[in-house]
Amino acid sequence: MTALSLEAVVLPSDIGEMLTRVRTSAPLVHNITNYVAMNNTANALLAIGASPAMVHATQEVAEFVGISQALVINIGTLSAPWVEAMQHAITKARETHVPWVLDPVGVGATGYRTDVGARLALQKPTVIRGNASEIMTLAGSVDAKGKGVDSAHTTISALEPAKQLARNTEAIVAMTGEVDYVTDGERVVAIHNGHAMMARVTALGCTASALMGAFIGANTDHFVAAIAALAVLGVAGEMAAEHARGPGSLQLGLLDELYALDANTLTERARLSVIT
Amino acid sequence: MTALSLEAVVLPSDIGEMLTRVRTSAPLVHNITNYVAMNNTANALLAIGASPAMVHATQEVAEFVGISQALVINIGTLSAPWVEAMQHAITKARETHVPWVLDPVGVGATGYRTDVGARLALQKPTVIRGNASEIMTLAGSVDAKGKGVDSAHTTISALEPAKQLARNTEAIVAMTGEVDYVTDGERVVAIHNGHAMMARVTALGCTASALMGAFIGANTDHFVAAIAALAVLGVAGEMAAEHARGPGSLQLGLLDELYALDANTLTERARLSVIT
Amino acid sequence: MTALSLEAVVLPSDIGEMLTRVRTSAPLVHNITNYVAMNNTANALLAIGASPAMVHATQEVAEFVGISQALVINIGTLSAPWVEAMQHAITKARETHVPWVLDPVGVGATGYRTDVGARLALQKPTVIRGNASEIMTLAGSVDAKGKGVDSAHTTISALEPAKQLARNTEAIVAMTGEVDYVTDGERVVAIHNGHAMMARVTALGCTASALMGAFIGANTDHFVAAIAALAVLGVAGEMAAEHARGPGSLQLGLLDELYALDANTLTERARLSVIT
Repeated sequence: MTALSLEAVVLPSDIGEMLTRVRTSAPLVHNITNYVAMNNTANALLAIGASPAMVHATQEVAEFVGISQALVINIGTLSAPWVEAMQHAITKARETHVPWVLDPVGVGATGYRTDVGARLALQKPTVIRGNASEIMTLAGSVDAKGKGVDSAHTTISALEPAKQLARNTEAIVAMTGEVDYVTDGERVVAIHNGHAMMARVTALGCTASALMGAFIGANTDHFVAAIAALAVLGVAGEMAAEHARGPGSLQLGLLDELYALDANTLTERARLSVIT
Repeated sequence: MTALSLEAVVLPSDIGEMLTRVRTSAPLVHNITNYVAMNNTANALLAIGASPAMVHATQEVAEFVGISQALVINIGTLSAPWVEAMQHAITKARETHVPWVLDPVGVGATGYRTDVGARLALQKPTVIRGNASEIMTLAGSVDAKGKGVDSAHTTISALEPAKQLARNTEAIVAMTGEVDYVTDGERVVAIHNGHAMMARVTALGCTASALMGAFIGANTDHFVAAIAALAVLGVAGEMAAEHARGPGSLQLGLLDELYALDANTLTERARLSVIT
Repeated sequence: MTALSLEAVVLPSDIGEMLTRVRTSAPLVHNITNYVAMNNTANALLAIGASPAMVHATQEVAEFVGISQALVINIGTLSAPWVEAMQHAITKARETHVPWVLDPVGVGATGYRTDVGARLALQKPTVIRGNASEIMTLAGSVDAKGKGVDSAHTTISALEPAKQLARNTEAIVAMTGEVDYVTDGERVVAIHNGHAMMARVTALGCTASALMGAFIGANTDHFVAAIAALAVLGVAGEMAAEHARGPGSLQLGLLDELYALDANTLTERARLSVIT
């Protein structure tokens, strides 16, 4: 078997075009997400040109999915009523072919969280976005040990579990860390952007998942869209880090950079490779 | 009928005086608001000199209304238990003559949201603050189509429905957008401040509603107070936009400007007109 | 009785060492806190080098306490299901000797809030952190009148009630205001850092409580750890205030300073005294 070239999988110009499509189509992204991340992710979606909404009442989630271009489910601060709402929303998304992202925050930390994450992962999410510990837990790797909601693993060590999870769930798996990986179970693309200080800002993983909602809502090739979303966050993050005095100014600078980022800069700065 | 002059309705110096009164009396503003906006609106109220509190347990909302100078009800992330708490708070506010603001976020997007918004609007809010789509939905205009929580309409096209809503509910209606309008069903004042980038920062509509709580809590002329609150946000927003690199720095710069804004600057920069 | 010297109670170098220990051990701090503060406190904990988690579902709180180094309970936006979760978490913390902080936000403002705060205060928190009105309410002082969640008292007037509360609950009491005080019922240390503008940023009291979680989770002398946490926040706050144009830039600058703060700077800038 010949190794795939990067060009055969994704062109940097593809992701630039996808960014432009997000900005011109302004997809409505329905988020059922955690309390910590809500403000950040709403702002990140607005900055990139999408239209965010946070809606979780069981009386309205299904109806709201019906007018949305994408759904993002994040279990960071889950509770029973919210999980019920997530289930309603996911059922509707599947019925109406609205693409959806699962962010299984902290699976592995408690039994409840692992059960809910695993149950949702089996309902054909378009993308599963997590850190290495979360992906390993979902893949059923017995040695997965998270540290609360932070990862205790590097992404490279979790690459095989990530591919296996993608095959078992038929989802694209996006695993973020020092290097990010996106896989559909066969192909694997690495994204080498980002900055170490980003780990000191809360909810940037959640932001990655939210941006992924915008990209899969506005673009039909969901594998490339997942790559594009991570490249966008990584490029904006490293540009913001150049000016940041610390994580406070990084958090806000990131929004400024997401807002200013254009397709050309993204295409030039995205550092992608194929793992073979 | 002779056209009203601006001076007959509101003097720019009136709104400067109202700002001073907010700062000297530091009204306690009780907010039952959405998760996305809470941090921003608490900070905006602190920056303008008010004392914010976020309290939503049914066991205590009525008692808390009793020690507050104003109540702000925002249905952005509503759920059944919160709607019940809103109802308790509103009932108490009406009994004890505490002025209150209704922010009907996203009415029109789902049936549940529209029902709740309409039900609350009929309970004599002092002010209803919304975007054009929300105001048109509440006014019963059949062609109102929101886009999630963002408006699909310009405010000018919704001016007649806004006036009708004000007459039907006996509330002051404050409709925000590129130009803001405040009407009591007869008089209409336009506020021409603000900056286009403000639409890329989440929860600024919610912030307008929260500031309105501070202004109607500290001042007896609620029509002018509603104008003053929008002028304050618009002036602070356009001053912040002068220094902002993007929506991240705009969000924080807005708090800095709200904090620094004085009555003279407000009076000089407020751009008001009467619509006749 | 001879007056205690500061050196007999705490050395500035002790608190520098405690900061280093937080950074090297990166304690997992489990927060059940209010919606307004969550993002800020998560970011403050990340900036200081700790690992924050916000977990409140009754199905998992006890299990999560079992993997945490400290627990922080904050009743700012309490409701019945959350109070139940707090109770589960506290019971587990006591069983497994996980140190925990109680932040009784707004006790005194409503009967419900006062009842819950008093009930939790009797369950042997390691530290109780509040403003003067809250501490006086908990101490049973009949003249305690809060203003919503802001204090209507200076800390010095509440010093005797604070000592009494510490004796009655066997907790360390940390009372914050223009001057902060930490007492175990016998010894009292004052921390003279901080800046007046900090009162115009929401959730900084909550941030103090969260940082306290990190310090008591990483250090065994909890009395000195409470002092260290307040010194850290005060020093970072006054350094941030030097560059801040207002409360918006103060909020983010504080995170930058928490991230950059080193043991030497902390030791040099901490202004402590013993009250005898």
